[in-house]
Amino acid sequence: MGAGKTTIGRALAKKLNMRFVDSDHEVEARTGVAIPVIFDIEGEASFRQREADVIKDLTAQRGIVLATGGGAVLNAQNRQFLHSRGTVIYLRASVSHILQRTSHDKNRPLLRTADPRKVLEELTVQRDPLYQEVAHLIVETGRPNVPNLVQTILVQLGWPLAPVSRLTIPMSSQPQHASHLLKVALGERSYPILIAPDAIKQIAKYISSNRVMIVTNTTIAPLYLERIKTSLETVGKKVEIVILPDGEAYKTMESLSLIYDALLEKKCDRKTTLVALGGGVVGDITGFAAASYMRGVPFVQIPTTLLSQVDSSVGGKTGINHPLGKNMIGAFYQPQAVVADINTLSTLPERELSAGLAEMIKYGAIIDTDFLTWLEQNCQKLRAQDPSALAYAIGRSCEIKAEVVRLDEREGGLRAILNFGHTFAHAIESALGYGVWLHGEAVGCGMVMAADLSQRLGYISVAEVERIRALVAAAGLPIIAPDLGLATWLDWMQVDKKNEGGQIKFILLKKMGRAVVESVPASVLEATLKACCTP
Amino acid sequence: MGAGKTTIGRALAKKLNMRFVDSDHEVEARTGVAIPVIFDIEGEASFRQREADVIKDLTAQRGIVLATGGGAVLNAQNRQFLHSRGTVIYLRASVSHILQRTSHDKNRPLLRTADPRKVLEELTVQRDPLYQEVAHLIVETGRPNVPNLVQTILVQLGWPLAPVSRLTIPMSSQPQHASHLLKVALGERSYPILIAPDAIKQIAKYISSNRVMIVTNTTIAPLYLERIKTSLETVGKKVEIVILPDGEAYKTMESLSLIYDALLEKKCDRKTTLVALGGGVVGDITGFAAASYMRGVPFVQIPTTLLSQVDSSVGGKTGINHPLGKNMIGAFYQPQAVVADINTLSTLPERELSAGLAEMIKYGAIIDTDFLTWLEQNCQKLRAQDPSALAYAIGRSCEIKAEVVRLDEREGGLRAILNFGHTFAHAIESALGYGVWLHGEAVGCGMVMAADLSQRLGYISVAEVERIRALVAAAGLPIIAPDLGLATWLDWMQVDKKNEGGQIKFILLKKMGRAVVESVPASVLEATLKACCTP
Repeated sequence: MGAGKTTIGRALAKKLNMRFVDSDHEVEARTGVAIPVIFDIEGEASFRQREADVIKDLTAQRGIVLATGGGAVLNAQNRQFLHSRGTVIYLRASVSHILQRTSHDKNRPLLRTADPRKVLEELTVQRDPLYQEVAHLIVETGRPNVPNLVQTILVQLGWPLAPVSRLTIPMSSQPQHASHLLKVALGERSYPILIAPDAIKQIAKYISSNRVMIVTNTTIAPLYLERIKTSLETVGKKVEIVILPDGEAYKTMESLSLIYDALLEKKCDRKTTLVALGGGVVGDITGFAAASYMRGVPFVQIPTTLLSQVDSSVGGKTGINHPLGKNMIGAFYQPQAVVADINTLSTLPERELSAGLAEMIKYGAIIDTDFLTWLEQNCQKLRAQDPSALAYAIGRSCEIKAEVVRLDEREGGLRAILNFGHTFAHAIESALGYGVWLHGEAVGCGMVMAADLSQRLGYISVAEVERIRALVAAAGLPIIAPDLGLATWLDWMQVDKKNEGGQIKFILLKKMGRAVVESVPASVLEATLKACCTP
Repeated sequence: MGAGKTTIGRALAKKLNMRFVDSDHEVEARTGVAIPVIFDIEGEASFRQREADVIKDLTAQRGIVLATGGGAVLNAQNRQFLHSRGTVIYLRASVSHILQRTSHDKNRPLLRTADPRKVLEELTVQRDPLYQEVAHLIVETGRPNVPNLVQTILVQLGWPLAPVSRLTIPMSSQPQHASHLLKVALGERSYPILIAPDAIKQIAKYISSNRVMIVTNTTIAPLYLERIKTSLETVGKKVEIVILPDGEAYKTMESLSLIYDALLEKKCDRKTTLVALGGGVVGDITGFAAASYMRGVPFVQIPTTLLSQVDSSVGGKTGINHPLGKNMIGAFYQPQAVVADINTLSTLPERELSAGLAEMIKYGAIIDTDFLTWLEQNCQKLRAQDPSALAYAIGRSCEIKAEVVRLDEREGGLRAILNFGHTFAHAIESALGYGVWLHGEAVGCGMVMAADLSQRLGYISVAEVERIRALVAAAGLPIIAPDLGLATWLDWMQVDKKNEGGQIKFILLKKMGRAVVESVPASVLEATLKACCTP
């Protein structure tokens, strides 16, 4: 009572694309009178029977978020239906919080007494054990921050199956020139992802401004720049160019400044679209330039590496590195569109293709075990650049990422699970110097380490760790970390953005396909570091 | 018909805090049947009579946004009531646009014919002159971007009186230690502004995190830093310090980097609050650091100059200068709170106090002529730092700014009027080198130039230009611009953020208290530059 069932239930239903139902409202709808009237006329016992009928009916339905009255747990049959037919979340609030929130509410029959605090305390003593019995998940609702509570619930539910069922790309193999058009659903900031062979031919369709600044690097420019520039100029757009040096070592303030300088020298206005043509480094720098030039101009991503096609180009994370930490400076800033051309992968070095597979394995491990199995079966096809296998795997990866981003755009909670393996990976990349290991290589190794850590905490089995290790190895990625020494590991992991109050946070596998964000005992972490590093 | 009356009407009503009414819905509500049924049973003539009755009644009401059916203008009495009782906005759309939008709509009786295009073309020929006759304002709705259209309307309405009536600070003089607590209403991003003597004593109340990084400069640090640091440490917060060099010349990437370096060296996490203690330069740099460190951490503004208290600390514009243009790199990022301590003004040099008066004069000139008159009467009191006059003028300025920001947070349209005088001012500041003229000094002079330009275009009188010139002079601000030479003026004005497609945009006074955003003929601009510069 007064714990926020309706507000949080509604918000959760919206995120999960489910219908919200309140059993009290259902009782009122069926009887045609308000609950206080039922209490007055028929007494509590009759109300409880009506409530039990409603709960029996509603728990037989699928795809709903149901808020029950606070007393529903008193009935053993209700408890049984609730627990066996659904996932029960107990929103626990203190008596003081409840009193505060219900003080102006006339619709609480049991609180219309001289001493509501005493009533509430008695109710708590009686009901709390029943709630605990029926609940799969207990969430404290002390501070009523609804978006945060919803994120907490989503994380603890472990990305439930419902959203996965929204995914539309079928797993069966596709015709050779399959293309996919997906959507990242973020209200006003929604945008399309086009995945197709020769997708860059369609780039002009995704740019509405007359002026365009293409940012690319020295490796990609000779391959695709002229073609894209010409196709934009053909439809009358004025195109400017910035070519950055290639590599993670150049994801710096200096490269960012090169873009600002060019924009200002060419007197580009607020309606100029920035186009990022390249891998994750170009995409991240260009996105941050777009976020910050004149406080925000439009931008479009043309990712040309597998890693950027399946990960960094989708979701609006932009930024640069700082000598003291990776991606420490940046913004959440969504593109207008992502145009992923599968043909650009044909010029990609084998090592970078493997790096992209790391992020695919990540989606399988934390969310979608069917996809993990598919990757195990098709890993060699992907490394051989089979077009239908690539189209499917990129599309599936983007769909999963788009769904996580939809649920948690600004990483209030759930989105952090996409950092599986990344806590270790960022330390490896930072300690060795950016670019020595590719990001995907570090993530591959980091996932093995995070799996090992999950196993040591009793969450997954040794066989499951081996399963991930084997797939990472099959993808051509390192499975043994460099021996940085304990102090260096800890030092770098302590500057991770997920940390709070000095505690290092890890993404762990509670089971295969289900990730959680937790800190771990130092001794367990040390054991993992010892086991996973070269001696 | 199909021009977007309902959608745009609703959005406009929300911005203006008015009620939205649709005359068609009102007719349906009164008859109890849908409009197609009225047409079928009674014919168009009877519907038109019912519509006329409704329009007569509704135009007699105050505080509503009314959408009428497309045929309402056929009736002369309707036209008279609409035009004389309200402000009429004609949303004009092409026949093709209307056809596109109404193609799936069964509720348009006149379009249920074999050749709807012909019907629409005939309707247009018949009705367009009537719409033009009745309208005070014509807006083309070709591209259906609702927020932009609403901004266009708001700008053209010239900041109507309704929002001004929301302001709560009375003009009567206040007791000596008056304090004001205002709110910037931006939904989830809303925040308070506290204006009070000794307001910094209350700073801890406005910071919810345990870790705090105070950013200040070499001038302000010796005056207030220790006091604020101690008050935060007393309540258990861990406080870090960054001290930047003082002055607009240091609003650079280098100063920004000093903040990033300190945050990373101290391993500050996402829950660290950045506190900006100083004037506009410190506030803008710190705000952008907060927007971009780890993609966003909380921040609080403690403005210590008059200019930052009345302008830059409110509204979420953050950023740094680039050698090629002022404030070219930045973000819209709202603070958690603004704490303006009037006592900090006692250490402010006279020249900087005058600079703050410039922005107050701006609010009077573009929005609030009563405030302009009050400033003329109290200018010397303000320069003598009379506490009650300062409290009133700061509060009134913040209220006006907060209301403009509420209507247009990300400068989609209306908010640009706050740049009155700034097109000229930015050119002066950039050309002379940042910090040679104070920003407020350049704005003072720029307002005189913008007023001169408005007069040359026939909008305001010579006497009104003199009125602004006299008040700017009385505030201790320059009224004659440096002679940069025409090419230099144009060159710097061409990098202004408001420009589009190479056209320089100016904020002009259509009349006193009513600003518009327009480009002007080159010859008129040259005449103003010639008249306002030292020979």
